[in-house]
Amino acid sequence: MNSKENNIRRFLVLGHNTPLDPNFSLNNLPGEGRIDILCRCINSAFFLSHSIRKKVRLYLVLQNKVTIRLEGKELKHLNPDERSTAALIKKALEKRKKVRIREKETTPGIYISERNLEDILKEEKGNILHLHENTQTQLKEIKKEKIVNPFFILSDHKDLTKKEKKIIEKERKVKISISPKILHANHTIIVAHNHLDYIQEK
Amino acid sequence: MNSKENNIRRFLVLGHNTPLDPNFSLNNLPGEGRIDILCRCINSAFFLSHSIRKKVRLYLVLQNKVTIRLEGKELKHLNPDERSTAALIKKALEKRKKVRIREKETTPGIYISERNLEDILKEEKGNILHLHENTQTQLKEIKKEKIVNPFFILSDHKDLTKKEKKIIEKERKVKISISPKILHANHTIIVAHNHLDYIQEK
Repeated sequence: MNSKENNIRRFLVLGHNTPLDPNFSLNNLPGEGRIDILCRCINSAFFLSHSIRKKVRLYLVLQNKVTIRLEGKELKHLNPDERSTAALIKKALEKRKKVRIREKETTPGIYISERNLEDILKEEKGNILHLHENTQTQLKEIKKEKIVNPFFILSDHKDLTKKEKKIIEKERKVKISISPKILHANHTIIVAHNHLDYIQEK
Repeated sequence: MNSKENNIRRFLVLGHNTPLDPNFSLNNLPGEGRIDILCRCINSAFFLSHSIRKKVRLYLVLQNKVTIRLEGKELKHLNPDERSTAALIKKALEKRKKVRIREKETTPGIYISERNLEDILKEEKGNILHLHENTQTQLKEIKKEKIVNPFFILSDHKDLTKKEKKIIEKERKVKISISPKILHANHTIIVAHNHLDYIQEK
């Protein structure tokens, strides 16, 4: 992370079955590797009423092979609904073949690259928080300084693979829960934002 | 509200432009009176990871004329994505002409009637909480007993009409905020649930 950036909130969502090519139907997002989940995560990460959260960066890591990065301060053409959001993912995947590790901007504020979880974690240092249901530590118990420029890792409807677990274990991360219930990833992002909105307003 | 019901969470969302007839396209939900917003509110109200919140009742009041009620403990065929949820709304509206004040079940756990906000508030008594951005009182400051069987009122992307404001003013309601930011209705529902999940677990 660029050290000049302050109070940026970073989220990474692992999409385990998300297609890597753009030939999916916008009429059946749940049937297309649960793209609907990633669309709702995008909605949760960026939308305020009538505005976009500028200081948010979201990584969607697809099948641990391809990464789509969304940058709040640059985003354009993003609407809250799933279908139009999926169309932006489709557009990103259309440009996939032409890129490797180096990112390519596909629409304003949306980038694609052939990077995996390990690649991203090499770049994104700082307070890594693994959001997970099976843990006692609650987000609201974490000291304020531990959640400056937080980097939250979440999974879609699938559990982490062994490989992903191993990669995350290597990092100095805190495993936290944000609810006594088990929530969807997009709902988890909302709760995390809300907690940070309160403590960072003070 | 049936007095035998305990700890049920009630939400009412006002859909100001939602169409009252079922001839809308599932391919353009934002263009169809922002049905996408109501679909996301349904998602937020009911979904936990791999389960449905049974003790939730959600009213969608369309153009202050038609009400769709969703009952957590009875719901079937509900999926998290917007499109399939909109198809359930469509199905409810298809059966609209045949009903009046009396409700008709259109799919399991979904009911339609020709009731407006006033009609609903006559039936749903108890702790009425109007979720609103322009207020100092925060949900987390509200005493626990004031949020037993809460009834939360929210609006879609539009402000309340004068008539709606007047109806709500008449009730003994508490005006509360759940964030220092202005949030979308579906995000607001998530934050409210999260607060209640913590205090009701204790």
